[in-house]
Amino acid sequence: MAASKVDLLIIGAGPAGLMCANALAGTGIDVRIVDKRPVRVQAGHADGIHARTLEIFESYGLRERLFREGQQVHRAAFYDTSPDGGIMRLQRAPAFDAPSARWPFAITRSQAGIEAIFADSMESRGLEIERPVVPTSLEVSENQELLEDPSEYPVKVVLKSAGCSDDASEVVQARFVIGADGGFIHIIMPRFANTTTGAHSWVRKTLGISMIGEESEFIWGVIDIVPDTDFPDARNLCVVHSHAGSALLIPRERDMLRLYIQLSNADVVDPETGRVDRQRASPQKILAIAQKILKPYRMNAVGEFDWWTIYIVGQRCAEAYSRHERVFIAGDACHTHSPKGGQGMNASMGDTHNLAWKLAYVVRGWARMALLKTYELERLTFAKTLIDFDRKFAAVFSGKDTPDISHEELHNMFLENGEYVSGVELQYAVSPVVVNDHQAVASKLSIGKRMIPHVFIGAADAVPVDIQDKLPADLRFKVLVFVGDITDKDIANKLQILTEKLQEPDGFLGRYDHAGQVFDLLGISASSKDAVDYTDFPQLLRSHRSKILLDDRDMHARVGGGGFQAYGIDPRVGAIVVVRPDGHVGLVAPFDRPDVVDAYFGGFMLPIAAAAQAS
Amino acid sequence: MAASKVDLLIIGAGPAGLMCANALAGTGIDVRIVDKRPVRVQAGHADGIHARTLEIFESYGLRERLFREGQQVHRAAFYDTSPDGGIMRLQRAPAFDAPSARWPFAITRSQAGIEAIFADSMESRGLEIERPVVPTSLEVSENQELLEDPSEYPVKVVLKSAGCSDDASEVVQARFVIGADGGFIHIIMPRFANTTTGAHSWVRKTLGISMIGEESEFIWGVIDIVPDTDFPDARNLCVVHSHAGSALLIPRERDMLRLYIQLSNADVVDPETGRVDRQRASPQKILAIAQKILKPYRMNAVGEFDWWTIYIVGQRCAEAYSRHERVFIAGDACHTHSPKGGQGMNASMGDTHNLAWKLAYVVRGWARMALLKTYELERLTFAKTLIDFDRKFAAVFSGKDTPDISHEELHNMFLENGEYVSGVELQYAVSPVVVNDHQAVASKLSIGKRMIPHVFIGAADAVPVDIQDKLPADLRFKVLVFVGDITDKDIANKLQILTEKLQEPDGFLGRYDHAGQVFDLLGISASSKDAVDYTDFPQLLRSHRSKILLDDRDMHARVGGGGFQAYGIDPRVGAIVVVRPDGHVGLVAPFDRPDVVDAYFGGFMLPIAAAAQAS
Repeated sequence: MAASKVDLLIIGAGPAGLMCANALAGTGIDVRIVDKRPVRVQAGHADGIHARTLEIFESYGLRERLFREGQQVHRAAFYDTSPDGGIMRLQRAPAFDAPSARWPFAITRSQAGIEAIFADSMESRGLEIERPVVPTSLEVSENQELLEDPSEYPVKVVLKSAGCSDDASEVVQARFVIGADGGFIHIIMPRFANTTTGAHSWVRKTLGISMIGEESEFIWGVIDIVPDTDFPDARNLCVVHSHAGSALLIPRERDMLRLYIQLSNADVVDPETGRVDRQRASPQKILAIAQKILKPYRMNAVGEFDWWTIYIVGQRCAEAYSRHERVFIAGDACHTHSPKGGQGMNASMGDTHNLAWKLAYVVRGWARMALLKTYELERLTFAKTLIDFDRKFAAVFSGKDTPDISHEELHNMFLENGEYVSGVELQYAVSPVVVNDHQAVASKLSIGKRMIPHVFIGAADAVPVDIQDKLPADLRFKVLVFVGDITDKDIANKLQILTEKLQEPDGFLGRYDHAGQVFDLLGISASSKDAVDYTDFPQLLRSHRSKILLDDRDMHARVGGGGFQAYGIDPRVGAIVVVRPDGHVGLVAPFDRPDVVDAYFGGFMLPIAAAAQAS
Repeated sequence: MAASKVDLLIIGAGPAGLMCANALAGTGIDVRIVDKRPVRVQAGHADGIHARTLEIFESYGLRERLFREGQQVHRAAFYDTSPDGGIMRLQRAPAFDAPSARWPFAITRSQAGIEAIFADSMESRGLEIERPVVPTSLEVSENQELLEDPSEYPVKVVLKSAGCSDDASEVVQARFVIGADGGFIHIIMPRFANTTTGAHSWVRKTLGISMIGEESEFIWGVIDIVPDTDFPDARNLCVVHSHAGSALLIPRERDMLRLYIQLSNADVVDPETGRVDRQRASPQKILAIAQKILKPYRMNAVGEFDWWTIYIVGQRCAEAYSRHERVFIAGDACHTHSPKGGQGMNASMGDTHNLAWKLAYVVRGWARMALLKTYELERLTFAKTLIDFDRKFAAVFSGKDTPDISHEELHNMFLENGEYVSGVELQYAVSPVVVNDHQAVASKLSIGKRMIPHVFIGAADAVPVDIQDKLPADLRFKVLVFVGDITDKDIANKLQILTEKLQEPDGFLGRYDHAGQVFDLLGISASSKDAVDYTDFPQLLRSHRSKILLDDRDMHARVGGGGFQAYGIDPRVGAIVVVRPDGHVGLVAPFDRPDVVDAYFGGFMLPIAAAAQAS
């Protein structure tokens, strides 16, 4: 059998696998990604991209295409039974009430379209998906010495091209493996549906990791159609409760509409076996139920059904996210829940966005193995909250078990959870990469949450720029030095003292800036654009002239200003903020305490000398 | 010789030719575009894209790439001599003060980059540049009957592939020809410069059309460098007057800087012949002068010069823009002026943006030949104002002839002309396609100017959208029906009466909507998003659910609202606004006077029946 070595093998090229592969493509880390499907997914599947995921896409330079190709969803509408037996609108509201989001709405786009964005981006940097390829065995060494040495290859995976004989198999020795092989694993064809409870991960099963949780009794059907309709909210997210059942409508790109329709047991359960029988369901049947629910409005399908399926709501979560921090599972492989919150794909991509940079640092020998433990800490905790939320949400949605919950309560629940659903309020717990001892120094910049977007202007060119655009997902830590008005001599002196300290050889810059690729320093000043030049700032803070920002209005007073206040930073005092490569605030330190920053990086990084000795 | 026929032959694939070719690619009109250069321009040339041109790019779906690849220029800085003999900054200001612009700044990008955007866009719709191809003869029939029949081919052009024998020539019979072959016609290589006064158009010379105007004595050198500098305004547009001469600095993409440096006769004129001698100039020499002008600041070049040239300022304009409205000239072929206003490329692209749709309408037999006369009317008039402006501006800039003009005056001149330079205030004169009898009905929407950008929200989805994004350059006339709050019964009734009138067979929709491709109707209402559905509007106004807009805030109250006020339309009265395919307001009509709209289109369109008879 052919044999090879690789830094990272990713099994599964859905959104979770692709997010990671794209993050590492072209960075010098040796990555392979394999998928059992012979071709890309063509339609259907998950489709909602929430506000935080939009920010993440932007950090990889992928948002513009998503906006061009997707449908923006800004508004929700709530319908209930009307006195005449039909339905009537109770209220409209923002679909996702997340004021801190840079783009406070969702984008819908088929999973196929999302995957194409990643695949095209990766391919432009030389990384292609190998398909159809299946793993046939996976072994992780139990040798502790091997496991602890990141330069070793303790995982053995046998890969086989689907349709080929076993002779054509290949043995891959990997330093790390990601199982991103959960979710809907069959090839979806129009007019062909599978019932599924998700989370059929071969990697997870091979590792013997259990899913914890349960299935509910709620059965839902999904159809994607181009509607011919007089329903006035066909371009809004709609929640409909009627005598004929419940429906959720999601507007989609290219005039499509996705309908989630609650099915009764009578619709799809075989009375003899008591099991869901996919043969009993059809898109026509689901549409017919939708038509009953939406009466008196017309809802017909123009042309063919683009995609359809039925599913049983289940909320389950893997008991662990890795084996020895050498094989990880991510995405649907480790959590499954109702698709109606639109969380699945977002959570999946969030997993590997979190994991990718950590793997890069360990593979390169720059950080300790222990950094990888924070993946489970951060993402499993999140998955648990997600599943709790979803259990509540799905039950209210389905309605059967909660007859005492009024539509007002459903409505309120929807609105109150806008920030949660949008993902912008996700906060990681304290760990070596989240240190919150000095939160008060930037009181409104919650340590562990993503960096809040805000527009500043370039000191060199007065061009407005969102701070998030200075924090690309380029595997670097961004060290933001917030300094007051440097025309104040006292402040200028303090800045001078700080930059001198930062250049001491035993500071973090001297100890941890491996290959000069770990840190990106930025200076953000409260000075007025008319009072200072970028050349007035210490050279250390301006490796490039674009690195100095001002908290001021742009030349047309359209945007900018108020950033120090928005972040809760006193301009007379200043602050140092460390943003992790995934955009989360990892540390806030007092302006005059670069030693706090040294200690932060000391908590998980390897010093340059030690790394050199090890290699 | 090979022979062929074509609807439109474009000679010259610079910005003017490409704008037209791209506008018509894929529309079913048979277009060819040839260029004498064997390969695309690689560097240098014009580089400034002003605010109105940004809007035009957006209307073709090309702005995003320009933003990604170009450099935004928001700020200007003014320097003059300092008491110690160096220079000092007098003031900073917005580089282009154009509050009504959607993007109130400029983008700099090499001409090569601009041409690539067009070429890639065209190629995706099946139109490629033929190169290197030169015309060797051009004849226009004088037969009046042929000339007046748009289906005839009265222009004969012989094309030859450069480097091939005459035997390989091809005779092309064209219905229309555009000579977009002015400007810098040589291949630019690093370290190779030509003096030029521009406007070397073979087509114009062949037609015997003269240029009117004169050259000045001002000689300027241009270099594109990546600077190593401590000059604090290297990322702003800078105007520098010093004892050592004048300079203009333009920040460019990829950290480049363009320097325009005034040269003295001693620098470049051969004392024996009195003529400018290109051999006497070199980029090193130009940089050395720049270094003197910018003292005490450092200004060195990192690596090679990206491009350089020298030129003599001249302001000249063609006496006519066409021969019989069958052969047109456009761009540098018909106007030449100082590059420092950054107007050249913008004016060139504006010419053919204006011409393309008119040609399309005449070629298709939908509009009268006379429509083409408005090209010269609109663009030659504009060129004359441009040249007057440039003469004044260039003189002040060069300074020699106007010792009495202070830097304050220069500064003010710069600022006061921001809207002019940005192109957003360009107003076309009254003609069959600009009818201003009812200006008062939309008092702030100047007829003849481009439609003012403003954010509305979709009635169906509450998604905010700029009105300009509903006015793409798709060759259609947009008929905007501005109606007040339709929950007011009186207003709803009036709307009902209007839509009935619009559907009468002798109205403009019945008479002029050739192939259903001429008109795009939109409804814009003052109703609140909470009070109405898109389904409340007459079907006629919503060929698609995205066609109804509301003058209201978006779901997060971030944008939108105030549109009726901004346009000076009384919501109790309403208005009908016709926007031409190039984005200019062609007509404002009272709400209850669709006959005014009928008359407008009757002024230049052919009725469907007549066109059918003619064909």
